[in-house]
Amino acid sequence: MKALVYHGPGQKSWDEVPDPTIRQPTDVIVKMDATTICGTDLHILKGDVPAVTPGRILGHEGVGTITEIGDAVTTLAVGDQVILACVSACGKCAYCKQGVSSHCQADEGQSGIGWIFGHLIDGTQAEYVRVPFAENSVYKLPESMTPEQGVICSDVLPTGHEIGVQYGHVKAGDVVAVIGAGPVGLGAMITSHLYGPSRVIAIDLDENRVAEASKFGATDGIVASDPEWKEKVMAMTDGLGVDVAIEAVGVPQTWQMCVDIVRPAGTIANMGVHGKSVELPLQDLWISNIDISMGLVNANTVGTLVKMVASRQLDPDPFISHRFKLDEIMDAYEVFGNAAETKALKVVLTA
Amino acid sequence: MKALVYHGPGQKSWDEVPDPTIRQPTDVIVKMDATTICGTDLHILKGDVPAVTPGRILGHEGVGTITEIGDAVTTLAVGDQVILACVSACGKCAYCKQGVSSHCQADEGQSGIGWIFGHLIDGTQAEYVRVPFAENSVYKLPESMTPEQGVICSDVLPTGHEIGVQYGHVKAGDVVAVIGAGPVGLGAMITSHLYGPSRVIAIDLDENRVAEASKFGATDGIVASDPEWKEKVMAMTDGLGVDVAIEAVGVPQTWQMCVDIVRPAGTIANMGVHGKSVELPLQDLWISNIDISMGLVNANTVGTLVKMVASRQLDPDPFISHRFKLDEIMDAYEVFGNAAETKALKVVLTA
Repeated sequence: MKALVYHGPGQKSWDEVPDPTIRQPTDVIVKMDATTICGTDLHILKGDVPAVTPGRILGHEGVGTITEIGDAVTTLAVGDQVILACVSACGKCAYCKQGVSSHCQADEGQSGIGWIFGHLIDGTQAEYVRVPFAENSVYKLPESMTPEQGVICSDVLPTGHEIGVQYGHVKAGDVVAVIGAGPVGLGAMITSHLYGPSRVIAIDLDENRVAEASKFGATDGIVASDPEWKEKVMAMTDGLGVDVAIEAVGVPQTWQMCVDIVRPAGTIANMGVHGKSVELPLQDLWISNIDISMGLVNANTVGTLVKMVASRQLDPDPFISHRFKLDEIMDAYEVFGNAAETKALKVVLTA
Repeated sequence: MKALVYHGPGQKSWDEVPDPTIRQPTDVIVKMDATTICGTDLHILKGDVPAVTPGRILGHEGVGTITEIGDAVTTLAVGDQVILACVSACGKCAYCKQGVSSHCQADEGQSGIGWIFGHLIDGTQAEYVRVPFAENSVYKLPESMTPEQGVICSDVLPTGHEIGVQYGHVKAGDVVAVIGAGPVGLGAMITSHLYGPSRVIAIDLDENRVAEASKFGATDGIVASDPEWKEKVMAMTDGLGVDVAIEAVGVPQTWQMCVDIVRPAGTIANMGVHGKSVELPLQDLWISNIDISMGLVNANTVGTLVKMVASRQLDPDPFISHRFKLDEIMDAYEVFGNAAETKALKVVLTA
């Protein structure tokens, strides 16, 4: 088969590689119908994720059709079209049992981390994929949904929902600010409305992204380069700050912006993948009763989100900015890697 | 009357001052039966809390007998013996209504902070005290409790319970580590048992405090100067770290200790009053699904804790290391300020 293979920092190619095979009785093999590229794949290509070794097939999102099932699989069948969650859950370890599959302790990849596709095992940017723990890690694609809609349910929507909105404890009437209007930030904006916030403020350096955010539920937008950005946020609250500040970039500056605008007893939910430590000004914050959360998605709300997409309560279509055939993936990386110019959000690749 | 007056950094004296009077119809006046000194009073005396201005009577804990009530007060009467919560709650503002009286927006002190006694208004280290918002801020002392037991319910027990244990989400079976075995750290240890942890590990530099912590529910103790302290903590878990790390000191080193021992999906609850910022290593923690909390006590569990002391489910007596008469308060400060030598925990002053 063909697959997008990582060959070390800065190097990737669309290679002929062996087809995957069933290794564990809980595996299935899928033929990929649709996949996409994540900002994390770009981090990997910069060499920022040393656990990814040369020869690894990248990708952790997608929809595929089952071509083979392991002996232990009873609830899935050949021919089923399924959404692959970006996190694989053994379903048996203490973490999976408490709903924290982000820290699944199973031995696929030997890592204690649930994100294994395109990280510790071969991923989804390929014609075929071996899916471990399939019955705990895939969701049947409803008939009313297209594969490209399903792809948005692998990572973008659940990460925004679980790590931004749920960890941020968004509740009715809240003023929510999302700093960073990329795909995952937009995923937080759109899913925040499941909980009834009064305002959702999109903040980004890119004027175009701020404008586009209104399609994802942002009620207000602020360009981060505006010297009065903070005063403008405060004026959208009762003067004390936002109830929930969601960090969706991953740099110290955007972290500090969250600290600057969160109200006493508010929350900061970090979704960004950071490369550096940040300052936590406890001399000011010890008395502030704020809560700070962070983490990798558990993907334990994928099933719920799929139902909401199927019933049109959530619309994933605006996330898709570009479409390619799977064998055009090198071009797709080019477009996605230059998002500032191409205005790419999610680039979807179909078979 | 006599009162302990702050005269600027490093200066205090037991002075003759005017008796307090009713200013608002929601006030009561109490004659103090018992009070105590808090670590925060020592911070104030170092000049670390500039909001406290010379002339202020210190103290925010105590039990008194009502001598006068404001016109609006209907549920309290002259002669009632009451515990004063360290946080005053107007009961009317948005924060009070959501149970976050730590950020009460009432105009006593004009601060947006619920801690006003001995901070923004005159405090409890005095013969008489004006108590604002009395019906939302005092609790009748049960007949089965002594005033000195009531004093421990003003701040020590609720801070340990609310900011350590509740914000830390201690639950059945958890391994809890409390770093700092001073009064508030011990308050967290004793109240953690209301939620059924499997182990409560006391960590402190002072060997004596670690040993004494067993009287407050610590199941294990580790001296922080032990070069293998971290390995010893990890060995008390399944190898992945503690479920809840409670910071009860307020310096960067003890914050870092919490980061070092918390497990994936665990919590760090900061109780310490910090004077410096700390490092938050988001490059490692973004993927860790940990939760970090901090804050000033809301005192919204004082009523519950008083009931539990009255029914002997919680024993406050081991907190009291030294007893003085109120007019010996200058000596009491001496003893409390040299806790390393005197082994002082709470010094209680009675009328």
